[in-house]
Amino acid sequence: MDLHILDHRLRVTCISKSGLQRYTHPLIKLIFLRNRTRCKFFSLTETPENYTVVLDEEGFKELQASEHLQVEGSTWLPLNVVSNGNTSSSSQAAGVTKITKSVIAPLAEQHVSVFMLSTYQTDFILVRDQQPRHLQHALHRTLVEEFSIFREERGEFLPVHSQDACDGSQRNGRDAAHATVHPVLVPENQFCVMSLDPETLPAIATTLIDVLFYSSSFKEDASADPERIKFFSFPADLLFTSSSGELWRMVRIGGQPLGFDECGIVAQISQPLAESDISAYYISTFSFDHALVPEEDIESVSEMLQTQRKDIST
Amino acid sequence: MDLHILDHRLRVTCISKSGLQRYTHPLIKLIFLRNRTRCKFFSLTETPENYTVVLDEEGFKELQASEHLQVEGSTWLPLNVVSNGNTSSSSQAAGVTKITKSVIAPLAEQHVSVFMLSTYQTDFILVRDQQPRHLQHALHRTLVEEFSIFREERGEFLPVHSQDACDGSQRNGRDAAHATVHPVLVPENQFCVMSLDPETLPAIATTLIDVLFYSSSFKEDASADPERIKFFSFPADLLFTSSSGELWRMVRIGGQPLGFDECGIVAQISQPLAESDISAYYISTFSFDHALVPEEDIESVSEMLQTQRKDIST
Repeated sequence: MDLHILDHRLRVTCISKSGLQRYTHPLIKLIFLRNRTRCKFFSLTETPENYTVVLDEEGFKELQASEHLQVEGSTWLPLNVVSNGNTSSSSQAAGVTKITKSVIAPLAEQHVSVFMLSTYQTDFILVRDQQPRHLQHALHRTLVEEFSIFREERGEFLPVHSQDACDGSQRNGRDAAHATVHPVLVPENQFCVMSLDPETLPAIATTLIDVLFYSSSFKEDASADPERIKFFSFPADLLFTSSSGELWRMVRIGGQPLGFDECGIVAQISQPLAESDISAYYISTFSFDHALVPEEDIESVSEMLQTQRKDIST
Repeated sequence: MDLHILDHRLRVTCISKSGLQRYTHPLIKLIFLRNRTRCKFFSLTETPENYTVVLDEEGFKELQASEHLQVEGSTWLPLNVVSNGNTSSSSQAAGVTKITKSVIAPLAEQHVSVFMLSTYQTDFILVRDQQPRHLQHALHRTLVEEFSIFREERGEFLPVHSQDACDGSQRNGRDAAHATVHPVLVPENQFCVMSLDPETLPAIATTLIDVLFYSSSFKEDASADPERIKFFSFPADLLFTSSSGELWRMVRIGGQPLGFDECGIVAQISQPLAESDISAYYISTFSFDHALVPEEDIESVSEMLQTQRKDIST
């Protein structure tokens, strides 16, 4: 398999529910009027808490600072696993499950905190751009066992040699082996995962604008109904797809907002899923992480994660 | 002909160029998401100076007060001429020309200031809701000679009798007979007048959003090029139409902003046009008035208005 280090320097930001009106103008530009902006990477995820917007530095320029905008301090690089035909993975499961053993687990072992953005087509693994050199090397040595590593430069993918090192790691004080096991919430509603040809975007613009900007009142109490969660994730280039009409259920990870420094959170969830070969999309947001699993697997996943909590707490 | 007094109480407002971002959220709702609002009358006109938004009181609630929003103090009622088959007008010309003799001139004679909003389908004549009772009667007596007058109430049109009186007049200090002749500007660019089936609105939403909210920088100097004027008028229900692909030229009326109190301005422009049977759309905005005339008539119209200025100033 190939590991691509994409040519984007990303910022992770958060718009409060009450700030959405103020940011409607730049967000509509970033989502629907792509040729008005030089932004090449954009993702927006609505959760009951807030809106998480991940975007490159060109896109970030569109967002004026205000009390409604929080910005994580680092720049992040997206990594992307590309299976080149003769895949070494034996798993048929989709999403993060497929890359758990090869990427997620090694990153956790190297104490690299990751921010995951799954789409139907691919899973973006965001890692911090700046990290100590010795960790770059350790990380590179780990990943190079599984992958040919390429770095995107001006649209071309150039092979990365060991001394160039793969970016992406920041040692965290907390050891992955003794990671906190976070409480999980399993809301009752079902989710669709679907994709759109970017060409059809104009045709459904008013519907998407309605859902994104007008379907919830910001006065809504986020904690009103923990059984149902409003969740809408929208990457502009690579939209979700559903070939089969199947429905998905969510596991939300975290009782308190997770922050950005802890490593091993994705691995904690994706490893048991990978062992059972259960497909999963994994979407990090500013406050919490979210895994989507097939509806028929939600009970076993729920049980699995409960058992894991007990195992670690005893 | 019938004169309908429509069941809308309208506000005339103005958003500054630099305030557009702030009002993008409510404006997109009012234009594209009609079932999210109870607003039934909406018109937006962009000029180099600002955005004029005319809307009913339900729509007005959507616009939060700010230093970027100016609101004219009165409530306005829209009048609408409906030709019921056996039209008494001998004119084949479209727009305001058709109603000059029957409505525009009598209103000017009664010293009623009007705010015009032409669309392809119809011409809305906005008059102030509150006016002295003796003027109501005078106005009614004048209009009743030409029209059967109906007032819309809960979707039905009820005949208006003389003692009920037609609303709409406010005597102005300045006499129509001695009205100021305002300087006119004839920009060089051509204009399209077109209509859209409301059903096709979603299909062109991104294009319209682009034109409305992203095509001009608010740093643009409004006076930069008086030869060309950016002008975009958008009523949500009754959109412009062009059956023939013909192009239109503009006459902008006013050197200084016209205000809302002077009467006879529309009559001053539309009377010579009516005499020559030249079609015209007439669109008032917060600062200036605008007449659109067929491209082939612009020179004679220009000349006509020059002669008129000289006649009055001598």
